[in-house]
Amino acid sequence: MKVGFIGLGRMGQAMAARLLGGGHDLVVYNRSRDKAAELEKNGAKVAGSIAEACKGREVVISMVSDDKALTDVVKEISGALDKGAIHVAMGTHGVHVLREVDAVHGKLGQKFVASPVLGRPEAAAAGQINIVPAGPADAIEKLAPLNAVMGRRTFPAGTKPEGAAAVKLGNNMLIGCAIEAMGEAFSLVRKYGVDPAAFYEVFTDGLFSAPAYKVYGNIIAKELYSQAGFTTALALKDTGLMLAAGLAANVPLPSLSVYRDRLLAAMANGDENCDWAVMARHQARAAGLDK
Amino acid sequence: MKVGFIGLGRMGQAMAARLLGGGHDLVVYNRSRDKAAELEKNGAKVAGSIAEACKGREVVISMVSDDKALTDVVKEISGALDKGAIHVAMGTHGVHVLREVDAVHGKLGQKFVASPVLGRPEAAAAGQINIVPAGPADAIEKLAPLNAVMGRRTFPAGTKPEGAAAVKLGNNMLIGCAIEAMGEAFSLVRKYGVDPAAFYEVFTDGLFSAPAYKVYGNIIAKELYSQAGFTTALALKDTGLMLAAGLAANVPLPSLSVYRDRLLAAMANGDENCDWAVMARHQARAAGLDK
Amino acid sequence: MKVGFIGLGRMGQAMAARLLGGGHDLVVYNRSRDKAAELEKNGAKVAGSIAEACKGREVVISMVSDDKALTDVVKEISGALDKGAIHVAMGTHGVHVLREVDAVHGKLGQKFVASPVLGRPEAAAAGQINIVPAGPADAIEKLAPLNAVMGRRTFPAGTKPEGAAAVKLGNNMLIGCAIEAMGEAFSLVRKYGVDPAAFYEVFTDGLFSAPAYKVYGNIIAKELYSQAGFTTALALKDTGLMLAAGLAANVPLPSLSVYRDRLLAAMANGDENCDWAVMARHQARAAGLDK
Amino acid sequence: MKVGFIGLGRMGQAMAARLLGGGHDLVVYNRSRDKAAELEKNGAKVAGSIAEACKGREVVISMVSDDKALTDVVKEISGALDKGAIHVAMGTHGVHVLREVDAVHGKLGQKFVASPVLGRPEAAAAGQINIVPAGPADAIEKLAPLNAVMGRRTFPAGTKPEGAAAVKLGNNMLIGCAIEAMGEAFSLVRKYGVDPAAFYEVFTDGLFSAPAYKVYGNIIAKELYSQAGFTTALALKDTGLMLAAGLAANVPLPSLSVYRDRLLAAMANGDENCDWAVMARHQARAAGLDK
Repeated sequence: MKVGFIGLGRMGQAMAARLLGGGHDLVVYNRSRDKAAELEKNGAKVAGSIAEACKGREVVISMVSDDKALTDVVKEISGALDKGAIHVAMGTHGVHVLREVDAVHGKLGQKFVASPVLGRPEAAAAGQINIVPAGPADAIEKLAPLNAVMGRRTFPAGTKPEGAAAVKLGNNMLIGCAIEAMGEAFSLVRKYGVDPAAFYEVFTDGLFSAPAYKVYGNIIAKELYSQAGFTTALALKDTGLMLAAGLAANVPLPSLSVYRDRLLAAMANGDENCDWAVMARHQARAAGLDK
Repeated sequence: MKVGFIGLGRMGQAMAARLLGGGHDLVVYNRSRDKAAELEKNGAKVAGSIAEACKGREVVISMVSDDKALTDVVKEISGALDKGAIHVAMGTHGVHVLREVDAVHGKLGQKFVASPVLGRPEAAAAGQINIVPAGPADAIEKLAPLNAVMGRRTFPAGTKPEGAAAVKLGNNMLIGCAIEAMGEAFSLVRKYGVDPAAFYEVFTDGLFSAPAYKVYGNIIAKELYSQAGFTTALALKDTGLMLAAGLAANVPLPSLSVYRDRLLAAMANGDENCDWAVMARHQARAAGLDK
Repeated sequence: MKVGFIGLGRMGQAMAARLLGGGHDLVVYNRSRDKAAELEKNGAKVAGSIAEACKGREVVISMVSDDKALTDVVKEISGALDKGAIHVAMGTHGVHVLREVDAVHGKLGQKFVASPVLGRPEAAAAGQINIVPAGPADAIEKLAPLNAVMGRRTFPAGTKPEGAAAVKLGNNMLIGCAIEAMGEAFSLVRKYGVDPAAFYEVFTDGLFSAPAYKVYGNIIAKELYSQAGFTTALALKDTGLMLAAGLAANVPLPSLSVYRDRLLAAMANGDENCDWAVMARHQARAAGLDK
Repeated sequence: MKVGFIGLGRMGQAMAARLLGGGHDLVVYNRSRDKAAELEKNGAKVAGSIAEACKGREVVISMVSDDKALTDVVKEISGALDKGAIHVAMGTHGVHVLREVDAVHGKLGQKFVASPVLGRPEAAAAGQINIVPAGPADAIEKLAPLNAVMGRRTFPAGTKPEGAAAVKLGNNMLIGCAIEAMGEAFSLVRKYGVDPAAFYEVFTDGLFSAPAYKVYGNIIAKELYSQAGFTTALALKDTGLMLAAGLAANVPLPSLSVYRDRLLAAMANGDENCDWAVMARHQARAAGLDK
């Protein structure tokens, strides 16, 4: 398929490389061109502008870092995209911006699919991410061969693009809630003289034998907060998207507020660049530990 | 080993049966004697009183339903138990009662181990429960052959009996927090038109591929609240033990409070006998769904 | 009226003095007799036992420090009180103990009124406390002349004694919520460079020109936490009664949980003997202030 | 003084009328000119554009409904205002927009003061509002004669404009927290059979004898939610400014989140146009009342 790809961060590069490997005709664009070097070597054409990366493409994928970046690129994308062509936004975006982008493309007879992904760059490189597309059914169907090479599984989330954002944000919210809950539970057992490593074994060997609990439980048990996989500051930004999604649909989210307030405590006390599991440290402090 | 076993509910029967099967010399006691019939048939001696079930035993296991029941039986147990013998409380108990029971046995030169278990009756019958003992190191060592036939794995939680309670309560708290978080996330995605079953697939296929999320996520997605595995009322009682443990050690537990308030809403609105995952229904109502 | 009075703490002494001053025939009892000296000088008879303070009295008032103390004295009171006579519990008690005490007196044909008071010892000495009686209508009516000399206003709260407890606890809960809210607001304005004293002036001069905000707002603005009017530890004990009242009636109380968790943070970090307004310090710390 | 006044809603009209009555030289502007008729009759000059209302004025007051409106007008104001002249934003605004507006004026050598007010239109008409200015000290001093005729008291909140916003938002947050707390307390006493009117009397006669509790307590006790003084929808919008202020300064605000979630429940269940005290109804529902 003729595909344009805009945004070559670590995730974007990995996903674009999968498309190349799958035999698709790929034009890529990134603001700083050096990120495209590896892909160019492997056969991708490198465009000098967003418009060039969109012209004549059946599908254009954007993988940009936040809502502002999406708003910035969508003007050029929509200006250059053919009628009937599809723009797939695969970054993590808020519901408001997706509605706006959908309206822009709709007016021009273009199709828009929001399609956030779950997984880290290593998973993307291995084609092992999960993909959650939402938008017009025919567009999602058309994307199937692309999703097949980029991901291990596709989870269609309905016909409204913002539905895909709700799924991605809901999933991330579950992670934050789990970290906060672990922080509370760890501080409780510690105050009763229990070795955190022992508690970690109990829950990860039982009902919580899943990556969210193993990865973050390990960070908390060993206090490995300085090696950030995802920082407090980024996690806080993510909660803004969740709150906005809850607001737009009138959904109270009390557990989100609990962990968001914890992130703010971490920010206020110098841990903005730590892994967001550092929430557990601030719960521990409230419990009189880890001064 | 010469073992006494007090309390033959579903869990107790299954665990006692494992001990019998493991070749131990077992005397059992239950207030209503009929619960002992099956065990008697398989070789257990049935005692007519708690004292009779304790006399001359190296280890006496109690598996009773709550703190009041433990307080009730401990007088007779301590009165009949030999000096140096071990009482193992394997029910889910609060930190206060464990301290009291520990003091009672301590004064009489008896040993006390709190050893809550994780798992359902079916797991107990198959020797697949997890066991969390805390108490004197030599006592825990002595219990090893018993734990080996009753459980699949043992997680020592230190030398203070209440540490085991903290672990069990902390683990259960993680479940409640996970259910509440799922309730919030499901209500969010539903308001954006996403099929709950699709959202369930996303998170259980990824970071949350663990029983807590699969079992309770499935109940929520399909609204199977009337088939209670663990009722709202029992879950609420459990939160009382957690709050008390937090209070005794000065540990704020904000996520616990969020889900406890949700349980109270369920209680107040007629769902006391539903599965406690019915919390999700009351979150949904707050979000304007499921009137 | 022939009145017995049990419990001569600071509040009890002040209230009993008012009854004496109002011309009532008073027999008083306190465990440590020296607290009765002043009253004896002014004409009260001092009883050597609770029973002696109850015999032949039309009304016996108990003013004891907590639920345990009430449970302890009620056995003797009920054993000595005449049929038809009234026991008025004027301390702050939980709903459970009031139900139990009510049942004890009911079986013996005695009447029971729960009648907590609002106000400090100085207000009690001046007859300026507010009184909230709940119980049988005829009993409350009979108490009118006593309440008239002890308080400035009486607020009947229905025919069930625990209703009076709910009112008192509800009122105290409002105080705790107000302190927590002020703590949050003060930390917010401080982070924007606003002098706490200036903010204090704004809200107390406007919609919050009431003692709860003036007294506690002043403590927070000036950080006068070491002069405890009511300690963190006592406030935390009070929240236990509120939680129990909410539990018994299935009422979620999320704002209570927020400030209760804050009290626990204060307890865990060495401020158990400070004024409970010290909650604001722990909110400030979570916001990166007052390390 | 030569004053320009932009934004003639109910508050703006009342405040502008006070300035006229105080003998100031007033040019007013409003998008729909008819709102200016009464002021014109009383001697104000009506400008045909914002620029006209700013030219040659020493002070220009804006009193517009929200942040978007402020952003819209500030371009024209700053374009027309003399160097050294003062723009005073007296509406309720968020900290971000105030920073932006401050920067715009700063670059042009103009002065900016944020000066939100507390009080309703009737109080404004009577010169009885409270005024909270923050900005350069000399500018605030210069405004004194204007504030003297518009308000009953001025509370300077430092030299940073956003400090004034923090004070106003902090004050409003206290109201929301008080309403939520009352909602919880009312539902508690009701479940114990206490007449809401009786509970209202208790707290408003004691520590809470202040407008916030009298006004909103009365609405809750009598369920007068349909006569909205301030709607759920507007209150929710206000919480957005508070959350943003907390975020920008890293301040966790857990009590805010509790009442904000309650507002969302009211929005989700059809009460967006009710008085925001309707929060109490949704707390009552969670407690099984008011179905």
